[in-house]
Amino acid sequence: MSEPNTSTAGFIVIGNEILSGRTAEKNTSSIAKTLTEIGVRLSEVRVIPDDKQTIIDVVREYSERFTYVFTSGGIGPTHDDITAESVSEAMAAPLELNEVAHQTLEAYYKEREQEMNEARKKMAYVPVGAELVSNPVSAAPGFIIDNVHVLAGVPSIFTAMVDELKARLQGGEPIKSRSLVINVSESVVADGVTKVQNAHDDVEIGSYPHVRNDGLGVALVIRSTGIAAIDQVHKELEAVVKKAGGKVVSVEN
Amino acid sequence: MSEPNTSTAGFIVIGNEILSGRTAEKNTSSIAKTLTEIGVRLSEVRVIPDDKQTIIDVVREYSERFTYVFTSGGIGPTHDDITAESVSEAMAAPLELNEVAHQTLEAYYKEREQEMNEARKKMAYVPVGAELVSNPVSAAPGFIIDNVHVLAGVPSIFTAMVDELKARLQGGEPIKSRSLVINVSESVVADGVTKVQNAHDDVEIGSYPHVRNDGLGVALVIRSTGIAAIDQVHKELEAVVKKAGGKVVSVEN
Repeated sequence: MSEPNTSTAGFIVIGNEILSGRTAEKNTSSIAKTLTEIGVRLSEVRVIPDDKQTIIDVVREYSERFTYVFTSGGIGPTHDDITAESVSEAMAAPLELNEVAHQTLEAYYKEREQEMNEARKKMAYVPVGAELVSNPVSAAPGFIIDNVHVLAGVPSIFTAMVDELKARLQGGEPIKSRSLVINVSESVVADGVTKVQNAHDDVEIGSYPHVRNDGLGVALVIRSTGIAAIDQVHKELEAVVKKAGGKVVSVEN
Repeated sequence: MSEPNTSTAGFIVIGNEILSGRTAEKNTSSIAKTLTEIGVRLSEVRVIPDDKQTIIDVVREYSERFTYVFTSGGIGPTHDDITAESVSEAMAAPLELNEVAHQTLEAYYKEREQEMNEARKKMAYVPVGAELVSNPVSAAPGFIIDNVHVLAGVPSIFTAMVDELKARLQGGEPIKSRSLVINVSESVVADGVTKVQNAHDDVEIGSYPHVRNDGLGVALVIRSTGIAAIDQVHKELEAVVKKAGGKVVSVEN
């Protein structure tokens, strides 16, 4: 598909717990949906360990390659939370105590009748020049330095932060999509689908098989910036499916 | 933690549907668990689009960096299934029709009273010298070329393939872990946990906060190859938690 002029993004998931299988990664799906919605193309996701040099290298690489970089994880108060210091080093912007973050945290703990301690204070340090991203759940903020957006790893907090960022990101022309779920196996329609794809370079057709209780099936997903092109390809794919003895069992925009 | 002599792995997730948010990625968690179990350390995961040159570049990079490389997705019959041809090019091993794969597919379709067509035949092509990985669900095999293991993207098939591979992989000394779930927030115990971590370089302590209905809590995960070291750190962490006014609410090995 000939891509419209689109902003791109790279997402860095920081955490040994994902790589060891202890925790299932849940943030990719939510950020991918949000970015698609506003016309930013998520180009790559990388899951890396809690290792300072690795974080520095990947943040630098992504910051150069993509319009936007997002990270999740490693901004809490413990010894294995090294994202802020690593991003600070990657972007050559030293950490400093952010007064707004500090006051927000103090107020949060005061309200809960708890003391501010060294570990908690650590969460108020962000790179010089960074903008804060608020944390409606547990107060410790994320931050933005240049094009790098440093967010929390806990999914409920991550999602809230992405929602807050949404309005601040500059998307391109949103890519629309339509999904046709069919009741025959992928290999029955593959040749026909390929012909349709070859005849339309303004759309991208994805073919995603599934295995369900009632047998094999496929979701054919048509993506394009133009609704007329999607309608036309929809019609042609329906003909392919019919010819193969199947039918479209559901359509989702 | 001073790592034992461990085999490493990189996992490449191939698919526009993950990057667009259409499909939630589910294979990382299952392969991560299996690799941890057999003492292979998953070092990095990368999610990349259905783009031939990108696949070639990442497969080459991973094949050099890690003991084992795994890929998921893109081995079906449709136009967007380009993993086999990309890996073939990356590993400089041309695709050829594999007789065993061809016969397996023919038998599978014959049993279902369906015809072999070009799209289906495409799934029997693997790089010269590759070993097959069987597919108990829909017959189309995965394959192994050098240290690269090319597997299906559909989670039920992916998991079956990983199970088959398990016995063929050479792991190191398995890393054991114990998880202590505590009922106080991360920032209350962070300073104490850091002290325990600094006193024990033969263990790695991870601190994973969660937000639940009953408030904030943390799982402190102790990882080491030695059970005695885990026992000792377990005891010290319990003391830290108690001093902070909390308790260990559950322990999981």
